[in-house]
Amino acid sequence: MKIAIINGPNLNLLGKREPEVYGKISFEQYFETLKTAFPNVELTYFQSNVEGVLIDKLQELGFSYDGIIFNGGAYTHYSYAIRDAIAAIKTPVVEVHISNVYAREEFRHKSISGGNAVGVITGLGMKGYDLAVRFFLER
Amino acid sequence: MKIAIINGPNLNLLGKREPEVYGKISFEQYFETLKTAFPNVELTYFQSNVEGVLIDKLQELGFSYDGIIFNGGAYTHYSYAIRDAIAAIKTPVVEVHISNVYAREEFRHKSISGGNAVGVITGLGMKGYDLAVRFFLER
Amino acid sequence: MKIAIINGPNLNLLGKREPEVYGKISFEQYFETLKTAFPNVELTYFQSNVEGVLIDKLQELGFSYDGIIFNGGAYTHYSYAIRDAIAAIKTPVVEVHISNVYAREEFRHKSISGGNAVGVITGLGMKGYDLAVRFFLER
Amino acid sequence: MKIAIINGPNLNLLGKREPEVYGKISFEQYFETLKTAFPNVELTYFQSNVEGVLIDKLQELGFSYDGIIFNGGAYTHYSYAIRDAIAAIKTPVVEVHISNVYAREEFRHKSISGGNAVGVITGLGMKGYDLAVRFFLER
Amino acid sequence: MKIAIINGPNLNLLGKREPEVYGKISFEQYFETLKTAFPNVELTYFQSNVEGVLIDKLQELGFSYDGIIFNGGAYTHYSYAIRDAIAAIKTPVVEVHISNVYAREEFRHKSISGGNAVGVITGLGMKGYDLAVRFFLER
Amino acid sequence: MKIAIINGPNLNLLGKREPEVYGKISFEQYFETLKTAFPNVELTYFQSNVEGVLIDKLQELGFSYDGIIFNGGAYTHYSYAIRDAIAAIKTPVVEVHISNVYAREEFRHKSISGGNAVGVITGLGMKGYDLAVRFFLER
Amino acid sequence: MKIAIINGPNLNLLGKREPEVYGKISFEQYFETLKTAFPNVELTYFQSNVEGVLIDKLQELGFSYDGIIFNGGAYTHYSYAIRDAIAAIKTPVVEVHISNVYAREEFRHKSISGGNAVGVITGLGMKGYDLAVRFFLER
Amino acid sequence: MKIAIINGPNLNLLGKREPEVYGKISFEQYFETLKTAFPNVELTYFQSNVEGVLIDKLQELGFSYDGIIFNGGAYTHYSYAIRDAIAAIKTPVVEVHISNVYAREEFRHKSISGGNAVGVITGLGMKGYDLAVRFFLER
Amino acid sequence: MKIAIINGPNLNLLGKREPEVYGKISFEQYFETLKTAFPNVELTYFQSNVEGVLIDKLQELGFSYDGIIFNGGAYTHYSYAIRDAIAAIKTPVVEVHISNVYAREEFRHKSISGGNAVGVITGLGMKGYDLAVRFFLER
Amino acid sequence: MKIAIINGPNLNLLGKREPEVYGKISFEQYFETLKTAFPNVELTYFQSNVEGVLIDKLQELGFSYDGIIFNGGAYTHYSYAIRDAIAAIKTPVVEVHISNVYAREEFRHKSISGGNAVGVITGLGMKGYDLAVRFFLER
Amino acid sequence: MKIAIINGPNLNLLGKREPEVYGKISFEQYFETLKTAFPNVELTYFQSNVEGVLIDKLQELGFSYDGIIFNGGAYTHYSYAIRDAIAAIKTPVVEVHISNVYAREEFRHKSISGGNAVGVITGLGMKGYDLAVRFFLER
Amino acid sequence: MKIAIINGPNLNLLGKREPEVYGKISFEQYFETLKTAFPNVELTYFQSNVEGVLIDKLQELGFSYDGIIFNGGAYTHYSYAIRDAIAAIKTPVVEVHISNVYAREEFRHKSISGGNAVGVITGLGMKGYDLAVRFFLER
Repeated sequence: MKIAIINGPNLNLLGKREPEVYGKISFEQYFETLKTAFPNVELTYFQSNVEGVLIDKLQELGFSYDGIIFNGGAYTHYSYAIRDAIAAIKTPVVEVHISNVYAREEFRHKSISGGNAVGVITGLGMKGYDLAVRFFLER
Repeated sequence: MKIAIINGPNLNLLGKREPEVYGKISFEQYFETLKTAFPNVELTYFQSNVEGVLIDKLQELGFSYDGIIFNGGAYTHYSYAIRDAIAAIKTPVVEVHISNVYAREEFRHKSISGGNAVGVITGLGMKGYDLAVRFFLER
Repeated sequence: MKIAIINGPNLNLLGKREPEVYGKISFEQYFETLKTAFPNVELTYFQSNVEGVLIDKLQELGFSYDGIIFNGGAYTHYSYAIRDAIAAIKTPVVEVHISNVYAREEFRHKSISGGNAVGVITGLGMKGYDLAVRFFLER
Repeated sequence: MKIAIINGPNLNLLGKREPEVYGKISFEQYFETLKTAFPNVELTYFQSNVEGVLIDKLQELGFSYDGIIFNGGAYTHYSYAIRDAIAAIKTPVVEVHISNVYAREEFRHKSISGGNAVGVITGLGMKGYDLAVRFFLER
Repeated sequence: MKIAIINGPNLNLLGKREPEVYGKISFEQYFETLKTAFPNVELTYFQSNVEGVLIDKLQELGFSYDGIIFNGGAYTHYSYAIRDAIAAIKTPVVEVHISNVYAREEFRHKSISGGNAVGVITGLGMKGYDLAVRFFLER
Repeated sequence: MKIAIINGPNLNLLGKREPEVYGKISFEQYFETLKTAFPNVELTYFQSNVEGVLIDKLQELGFSYDGIIFNGGAYTHYSYAIRDAIAAIKTPVVEVHISNVYAREEFRHKSISGGNAVGVITGLGMKGYDLAVRFFLER
Repeated sequence: MKIAIINGPNLNLLGKREPEVYGKISFEQYFETLKTAFPNVELTYFQSNVEGVLIDKLQELGFSYDGIIFNGGAYTHYSYAIRDAIAAIKTPVVEVHISNVYAREEFRHKSISGGNAVGVITGLGMKGYDLAVRFFLER
Repeated sequence: MKIAIINGPNLNLLGKREPEVYGKISFEQYFETLKTAFPNVELTYFQSNVEGVLIDKLQELGFSYDGIIFNGGAYTHYSYAIRDAIAAIKTPVVEVHISNVYAREEFRHKSISGGNAVGVITGLGMKGYDLAVRFFLER
Repeated sequence: MKIAIINGPNLNLLGKREPEVYGKISFEQYFETLKTAFPNVELTYFQSNVEGVLIDKLQELGFSYDGIIFNGGAYTHYSYAIRDAIAAIKTPVVEVHISNVYAREEFRHKSISGGNAVGVITGLGMKGYDLAVRFFLER
Repeated sequence: MKIAIINGPNLNLLGKREPEVYGKISFEQYFETLKTAFPNVELTYFQSNVEGVLIDKLQELGFSYDGIIFNGGAYTHYSYAIRDAIAAIKTPVVEVHISNVYAREEFRHKSISGGNAVGVITGLGMKGYDLAVRFFLER
Repeated sequence: MKIAIINGPNLNLLGKREPEVYGKISFEQYFETLKTAFPNVELTYFQSNVEGVLIDKLQELGFSYDGIIFNGGAYTHYSYAIRDAIAAIKTPVVEVHISNVYAREEFRHKSISGGNAVGVITGLGMKGYDLAVRFFLER
Repeated sequence: MKIAIINGPNLNLLGKREPEVYGKISFEQYFETLKTAFPNVELTYFQSNVEGVLIDKLQELGFSYDGIIFNGGAYTHYSYAIRDAIAAIKTPVVEVHISNVYAREEFRHKSISGGNAVGVITGLGMKGYDLAVRFFLER
């Protein structure tokens, strides 16, 4: 089983940026834990700050992978182009947000990209990625 | 560890109601599977169609349980009274929706109650309850 | 043929409350007239002020009755939970309003529950219930 | 007793246009049935696609007829001029819609003209005209 | 000097319709007074309930008359087609409303057609037409 | 003189819930103080989390009591059914809010039920109930 | 007959300010013309840039004058306090705007104060004041 | 092949009206050019300022023609009745606007009728009609 | 104890202005009653129609008085400058409205200044000032 | 004559993505047809998923080409940066959309970039590109 | 060179009011520093809490000064009368805000007056006034 | 002291693009002037049309530079991803706009990114960059 994690803008700063919101661990560190937890899953990780490069990657992996875990960062709330990309590919996508988007600023309450995903996990911290992997494994 | 599942309006019809949206299994059947999957967790299940009775139950369990998994059904989208109840209690709440609320009618895109929950899992089917239990267990 | 009339909040005050808007006859009195007018129809009447109890009743009758005549009172304008209940049951529902909702306050111009009903009769007074019974009889 | 039915734009296409929404019978055919059903009522039928011609007809009949059954088609949702005409005449008007306007596009959820009518019947198919005649007869 | 008065929907009912809002005199009667008051002005009067016929008339007179006094009735508030017609012709237009549109329903507070007129007189009763004639005479 | 205090959702948690907003005293304790302060007034206290049960109680007391002090909690901001109940009864109602609703979240700035009350006291803490009793006594 | 003209903010700059919009004559000059045109009317003129001072003047004259011609300048579009003052006095008020407010910025399309005036004349230049005097004289 | 061009309000003024926006050629002149350019197509031209007459024409031609090129003028932006007519007929419709509606006033940015057309050509001047004919010929 | 009452625009007309809304007593008369009722409180009264003069007075008294009772009249609903002044001073402010703002026009339902006050009393007539004094005395 | 076609996000998936909406041919295949159809036009094709790279290309070609045919995909509906780029260059731009944007989701009904283009062709399938080339050739 | 600084409501409290937002220095103190820093500029300072008095001052200085630095306080966000005054005068105006208006409440995000100023400096503290003087000196 | 200037989309066209709005000098030319004016500051300049590349650069410099002067061009008005990047870095950011955004199209009146900046300078032309450098130097 092949599952990709694609992270969007500013998520490369995890551990550095606003630790009271996002925690102190970088995503690279967390990714190691995740690979250990799921030894039988082929896990890939990709990050970019560029909206169109995220679309490129969704298209590249979206016809051969078994699942994509996608955290579009702030693009979640206004990128119709990413939304279209998720609709255009074959691989199912689960959207993950580390913080609870409903408990933050108004503009984060809606998800443009989430409407074309299978579902969304929000507010459960890094653990959200783990649960998304499990979802793909067990469904 | 004591975890309660509280379901809101019309979720007693699961398996009967619009099976193309919600699947064919009743929640009672699924709850058996869940108890089997987590033999060491004390799991409780409660359902009501009445907004205020859901508040009563949140208050009753909300100072002694370790976690509450809450699916407010349609109340999710307009009940400020439930939102206040979640803020008023001590037990952390994870909100679960069976279908992907972002892929349905406009009025389901916002969650009034979710802003005071720890987080929200939406669109992952019955599996969402399972993942929420795991979240409480492993965090 | 079995037809139920379910009335929502404050409709138990008919005859007492704002008679210039709703007339001077209580619903119980009117219900007697209705039974006399349709001797071959098995007519049932239920009223509650509680949103969730109305949902309970819709679910209870909604898989065996031939028709439900529903007047949700003010819940009409904001109860997505009742709307979901009407969608979830099998019995067709006709919504009735005694006064003309379009001629009153702005918030009464929209019907949340009406979108899942077969149709809506508004502004024709008590007569609206009579016409709804006829609709079920003759269609 | 003299009752007029005035139909607005595109209702001359009934039976031809989108039969899955509006049924397969033309209004002329239905009108024959209606006259048979109410032999003692003087029934008149008029149709126009022109907003101002509908106003002309409302004014022409609106001081001598006992009732007008009006289906303004799409003008219902934006014609303040028709709304004013209904307010200006003496004959009471019952608005009828064949399909359930609350179950269709957002713009059909509001009725501009309905606020000045006695009441509105929506979603009960051709039967709505029959019920409106009965309303005038029995009130 | 040639000045035309063009009245829109329902203004043919002046004197009959809602006399507490619009007064008891028909426009034809008032028009006689007006002609007497301005013996040296060539005054024409036209009324139609049909939006497009009002546009026809604006176009017909709008390249030869010295002034047009236009009361679009309810079309004032939503007819972009009339607005375009006023922009397209050469004759200056003064818009007149008999009642004070700012003191009535919300939808009457804005004037779509007025933006392309020279100006608007509202709320001064029939007198508004007289003042508009004077404006053309004396400017 | 008979005055009733009716409290809505989550107000049974006073003293427990968010004490920085609502203070540390339970309403039962405060109610004793109140009875002492007004020995000649017959004071009754009722609380429910259920919207419809609050309506039941308003109807039950609303034709015989001299005054009702009503704190609808979060229902204040969206319950048109409670608003209708206040309009339907005879006893005058004064709405009280412990915290200053204008200084909190946007959704608390408007009062649906307050439009049918005599008036509203907001932000003066428990003291608001005391002032409302005085208002009934001295008016 | 005593008629007052009250002008609001920036109207003291007439003739200086944006002459392409407001013309080249100062109001003082125009006022002389006006007094000559109506020798039998006792005309008074007052201007202030201060919202509250305009209210003071409306109150001072508003119980003895026969008519007030009021141009509130930009306050027209947001001063509810002036609106209340016009409602509170006895003298009828005609609102005048020199330029056509419907042809300018969006925020000038609505008149807060105009709803409590008798009527509004807009876009007819200085001539609007003359027509307003005539209205008071001849009505 | 039979193709009709139906033009709406004020388009009869082409060449006269605001030539800086719409050019200096009348539509009749342009229509001659068009017929010469497509000698094998049976081209018809119709214009009316009346909304309902445009609907009449759409219905009349809409079951036998191969294509209709429709320019609804300002009705484009608010006529739900025309929108319904386009949905009701069988002939495919291509909407054409001479000027670029997206570069003009806000109210011209949306097309009510366009949603039921095959497509829309906007801003390409008279050439838009030529391209629409080609579209019907070559598809 | 020193308490000031500051009244805003048009409240100097109390007793004269719309007595069916505001009663027949002038504020000066009521103020005498109030001083008699609280002989041990140093009460001051100030009124102005000018927004900025109200701010001047709030600043002047707002660092030495024990309480300010403020009725901003219509400024309540749009004066962000008064709102800022209340935030800037040290003396606590209780806002009072004589009529029930929630039962009047839409624009009176929100309080801009109230968000920075301690609380608001609305709809209890002149009595509201009395209750506000008591609040300062007893808290 | 040099004409460039610039396609935005997800248009590289044409033929693969949602063929019921966009057809089964890839753009590369279609581009060959286009070059054959216009042997005397120098045609260039470019595609990117990256908003800023589309801007780079518009700037690069926008001072030397004779025409640009631009399909911004979903960026059409929110990219003010692309809108600015079209305004900044000299080459005229025709916007093309394959599907009818007015017949799809609400967010696709407006075009941000279209306001600075010469015009827009929408809903005519691949044919839209062909017609746009013709427009540049023949104007 | 003559430059005036005009400060609006509550800015006389600088140093006293909310020092965590606005700092601890009074404007008078800062003004001394400013005069020292620009010995060759004739600097004037004026403050008022009254909207209309600010307009008076803008008009008084606005035809002879070389530059006006204007901080309208809360009036910035709703005073169309000040906006008009800035448009009416000849002296260029630079608007200054001490705090970052974009980082505070929603209502402070827009500037009504700023649209007619040359430009706006916001969030740079007292330093903003210094930079505005420099701008006038060096441009 | 190290200060970076980061310019967003289309600002590489300065001097070429719409010179009546943005002036005739390219940014590179202006940058030379700036370096001469501040010989002791280490000034860096970077420009990109790509939203994500701007984020990359903000992150790269945002933990070591003393100040960043950021002009996001049109991204200012909708890029929540850039807004997040400014919040995530340590270096303070001053936003600069060459033209007065409040005097242009509605969509430019709000700044998404500005809410996380220290402050914003708008409308002062190229001079705005100079003043921003001074702000960093002297604060």
